[in-house]
Order: sequence, then C-alpha cells, then structure tokens
Amino acid sequence: MSLKNDLLLRAAKGESTERTPVWLMRQAGRILPEYRAVRGKLSGFKELVETPEFAAEVTIQPVDILDVDAAIIFSDILVIPEAMGLAYEMVEKKGPHFPKTVTSSNDIDSLKVADPSELNYVYEAIKLTKSELDRRVPLIGFAGAPWTIFSYMIEGGGSKTFSKARGMLYTNPSDAHRLLDMITDTTIGYLKNQIAAGADLIQVFDSWAGVLPPNHYSEFSLKYISKICDAIDEVPITVFAKGAWFALEEMNDLSCNTVGLDWNMNPNKAKEVLKSKTLQGNLDPCALYGSFSEIEEETKRMLSQFENHSHIANLGHGVYPDTDPEKVKCFINSVREFSSR
Amino acid sequence: MSLKNDLLLRAAKGESTERTPVWLMRQAGRILPEYRAVRGKLSGFKELVETPEFAAEVTIQPVDILDVDAAIIFSDILVIPEAMGLAYEMVEKKGPHFPKTVTSSNDIDSLKVADPSELNYVYEAIKLTKSELDRRVPLIGFAGAPWTIFSYMIEGGGSKTFSKARGMLYTNPSDAHRLLDMITDTTIGYLKNQIAAGADLIQVFDSWAGVLPPNHYSEFSLKYISKICDAIDEVPITVFAKGAWFALEEMNDLSCNTVGLDWNMNPNKAKEVLKSKTLQGNLDPCALYGSFSEIEEETKRMLSQFENHSHIANLGHGVYPDTDPEKVKCFINSVREFSSR
Repeated sequence: MSLKNDLLLRAAKGESTERTPVWLMRQAGRILPEYRAVRGKLSGFKELVETPEFAAEVTIQPVDILDVDAAIIFSDILVIPEAMGLAYEMVEKKGPHFPKTVTSSNDIDSLKVADPSELNYVYEAIKLTKSELDRRVPLIGFAGAPWTIFSYMIEGGGSKTFSKARGMLYTNPSDAHRLLDMITDTTIGYLKNQIAAGADLIQVFDSWAGVLPPNHYSEFSLKYISKICDAIDEVPITVFAKGAWFALEEMNDLSCNTVGLDWNMNPNKAKEVLKSKTLQGNLDPCALYGSFSEIEEETKRMLSQFENHSHIANLGHGVYPDTDPEKVKCFINSVREFSSR
Repeated sequence: MSLKNDLLLRAAKGESTERTPVWLMRQAGRILPEYRAVRGKLSGFKELVETPEFAAEVTIQPVDILDVDAAIIFSDILVIPEAMGLAYEMVEKKGPHFPKTVTSSNDIDSLKVADPSELNYVYEAIKLTKSELDRRVPLIGFAGAPWTIFSYMIEGGGSKTFSKARGMLYTNPSDAHRLLDMITDTTIGYLKNQIAAGADLIQVFDSWAGVLPPNHYSEFSLKYISKICDAIDEVPITVFAKGAWFALEEMNDLSCNTVGLDWNMNPNKAKEVLKSKTLQGNLDPCALYGSFSEIEEETKRMLSQFENHSHIANLGHGVYPDTDPEKVKCFINSVREFSSR
C-alpha cells in the first residue's frame, strides 16, 4: 500500500521531489502541550516508551499538529542496553542514569546479545502507529549507534568528557570491541524487527561521535555503523553522527542513503564530499528562538545552501524543549513554501 | 634577562628548536598531590586564585615536578566577568556558578568595562612567579575568549546546549555585540597588565567555540579574538578554539603566532591550512590512561604528524584530573626524547 505523502522516501533515495520534505528530530514530545498532557497521566518516561498505545499517540501528534512529512516512532535509544541486561532509569530533568555500569570484563560476560523479542513493545507501537497513520506519511524507526550506546553503558549517563568510555579504547580495546559487537548484533536484530513491523526508513543516531579522535572514530564507531548499514537493505537508512565532521569522507563509503548534518557543518562542503548521498539538516535549533520573519530568512538561507542536492530539511539537532510550537510551524511552513519547484 | 629555556618562545615565533617544547593545559593543579596539599589548606578555589603567594606556588609545581617547558599562571577565565560586576562561585565537583546572570539590556547596563587594577592580584601572582621561576622557563598568561566568557555570563555555568547564549545571537544580536565589546575591552586591558607584570606569552581559550554555526562563529567570536590579537603585540599569542575546525581557514588571518588544536583535529589538515602558524597540541588526554609503552607510541605518532612544521607539544585539551602524574611524565619525557633533532 503506497503512502499518500512519500516525499521523504523519494528524497532519501535521491529521487527528485516537488518540494523538500521536512521533519524534526525529537519532534515527538519535547515541545507540544498535547505531549505533556499524555506524559502527565503516566508514572514516568519509561511507561510512555513501553506502552504501545501511548507511544503511538505521541508519535502521531506532530503529524497532526505540525504537519511534518514523517513520523518517528517515540522510543529511546537506551532500550538496547536494557534488553542486553543493563537496566536504566530516566531521571526527570537530568536524563538517563544506569545504576550499574560496565567496569570490567566480567560485566561484559554477564551481558547478552538480546533476543529481538525482548523489545516487542516497540514493534507493537510501530504496528499501531502505522495503522493509525493510515499511510499519510512514512514512519521512521531508529536506534543509537553502537559507540553512543557503549558510552552510556560505561559512563552510566551523560558526561562532560566521556573519559571513561574513551579511556577504555586505550586501556582495553579488545573488550571494547567485544561489547561493541554485542551492541551491534542486538541493534541489527532490533532494526530488522522494526522494519518487519512497518518502519519505512531507519535513522541511526551517533550522538557522541564528536568526542573521538579520527582514528578511534573509524575503528570504534564507523566500523559498527557500517556493519548495521550493510545488514539493513530493506529500507533507506540515514546516519546522523553529531560532530563527526572529520569523518565525512569515510561516511561516503557507508551503504546508507542519507547523512544527517549538525548545524556546525557547512552544507557546501558536505555537498562536495558526499556527492551521492542525500543530506539531512541542518538549521541551528536556536534559530527557532528568533522572530517569525527571522526564521523565514534563516530557513531560506539554509535551503539555498542545499540547492541542487537531494535534501531532507531538519534542524541540526533535536528541537529544544523550550521552543514555541508556533515557531516550529513557521519553520515547517517556510520549508514547504520556499522549496516548491 | 634571557630565559634559560626559551624553546616555547622560539617555537611560537616559528624559529627552529633543538627539540619540541611541551607543556600541558591545566597542568597547574588538577593532577598533582602537591597541588591538593596547598588547596586543602584553603577555604576554596577562589582563595587560591586570589592569593598571589599560593597561586605562584601551584604555578611553579609542574615545572619542578613534571619538568615542562613553560609555566602557566594559575588563575581562572571567570575573573573577567567578576571584575565587570558579575560575581561567581566555584562549586566543588560541579564547576562555576553565577548566582545572577545577564538576562536583559538592563543587566548589561549595570556592568562595566573593568579597570585592569581590579585584577591586581593576578599581576602580583605573575610577578611573584617570575621571580621564583628565576628565568628557568617562560610564563604563559591567559584569558578566555569573549564568546566563552559571554556564554558563562548568560548561562550562569556550563550547559549541554548553550541554548540561552546561542539564542541571544538570534533574538538580540545588538545587545550580544554590546556585551562582547565590553568583555573584549576588559580582556585587552587585563592581558596588557599581565604582560607588563611579566607574562612571556599569552593564550586565549575559546572553550565553547564548537557550539556555534560557522557564520555566528565569525561574527560573534572570531571578530573579538581578532581584536584582542591585534591589540597584543608585545609577546607571542596562542589561540585555542576548541571544536572550531570549521573556522581553520579564517584563523589563518588572525594576528596570532600559534593555533592550538584539539584531539579531533587532523594535524595534516591543519598544517595544510595554517602554513605560517605554529601549531600546538594535540594528543587525546585519554591516551594518558594507557600503559607507559602505549603512551610512548601515541606520542611518537602525534609528533610524526606534526613533522616539518613548527610545533608545541600539548594535549588536545586540559589534562583530566584522574590522570596518574607518572603517565604525564611519560608523555613529557617521550616528547623530549623522540623530538630531539
């Protein structure tokens, strides 16, 4: 059954489109009062992630309210370490916290490559969303990149320096590779099940790409992203590696369709290097604090930088929680208006 | 009176040296038990910064203990906003905190371009250090780049996104420029007094360079760094803009002698772009978690990347507090041994 709006899928495949498709990272939740109303009824963030009915509801909200060209399933990249045996908590206003972290070889021994069925609630949420979306727009499935997941498992949460996770690449590279392999295998099974449940496109988020030196990024991150890209051939795949400007040339070799750019990246440089990839991004999320007319101007400027290249409009990072939804609509409408050919 | 060891100054000026000079960012304090012994006697971090005798003592410790080729005055970049009228606290294990932040035009009106004499305790510490160093090695003075100081004044401390500071560049660029101008003028007076007191070289730290899109970095950061570089012609100047890989070409136009590189940066690329600048850096601070033989290997690899270019060895960021001082010595000795010509 074909989609009513397949702009995103066609752009991801490098096909020409009537206008540039647009969606926002973190659009499900974060900014909408309608999201907070659902969230407020529940015990916490994880209940929302683990209950397919609620996850589907907040996944569809941005499609209804903001009129974006894709939905992205409401979930969390940290369901992967949890399925592998490392539980986490989501601490209000602080972020994720792992009560137990990986500090030794024994800790890795005690983890497993998860059976994909452990994450059935995600596939159920995808099925439900697909049914309720009724082919209006594509649904994006996602996972964290193995390096980013690894960092959380070693650090136990966010970090200023990620010095524990990065340090292990010097002190115990073989254990690091062992854990990264387990995360990768778990992730491939998980993504294949997301696709079987109905995900039309996959995005891999490497949030902590930017903390590694280039040689370590190749060895401990890109290698595993590449393995995932090679394993997923059912649907288009997007890789968003925040801060990995130094790996742009190497990203050309990934078997992915689309590369996401953060707001530091000069689109002209990326167009030059990534000739055969669709590019996604990259308005500074802070631009949405400006006035309506400034947002129009910044959006036009951004669109013009991607001209003559296959492009999916987005911010250069997730939308910030204190952004006015009307400003988000202004961004989306500006893309629609000014990219029409 | 000439210095006994002037390797750093000669390398900064692009002159050839018998071996590569080496020092560490954050070498004064952070890792040495001798530092913690001094710190433990005092009421807090700020007493150490504001008492010339103690500041001089911990400034010289790394020269005595680690045998580095330069001392850097023990101080804090946030003495500048404090002198301008915005007081801060240093919260143990958390970092700096400003009880009051800049949130309006009125807040900027209430600040002043500081009289350099407000920071006399820093110049006193420099004089004392110079006298106690007895010309063994050069003494580096420093300040934060105006954008980094501005960020602290708006955010009130560290931040994951710096979205308030960055947001102001969209919502109120003229006030942002007004405050940046005041910070810049204060900083120039401050650095000139550091030099008059005896600083042999100046380093400007732009710690939060990497959070800005390239056009904003030019307009709101580089412009002011450039103003500082133009005003300081008494001694060599080093600019370390962490994460500002996208501005490398523009940094060529700064009237500074040396550009510091973080560990993300490929030295070969930097050599190509910054042909006439001395380069400083850029070993990953996490490399010092490795074994002694691994540190030797990583240091050799780093030195070889800077070959045939004027180079000051350093880490790509401040040394991490949990680094074994013996590992730091191994790094320093490796530079001495393997860079000898």
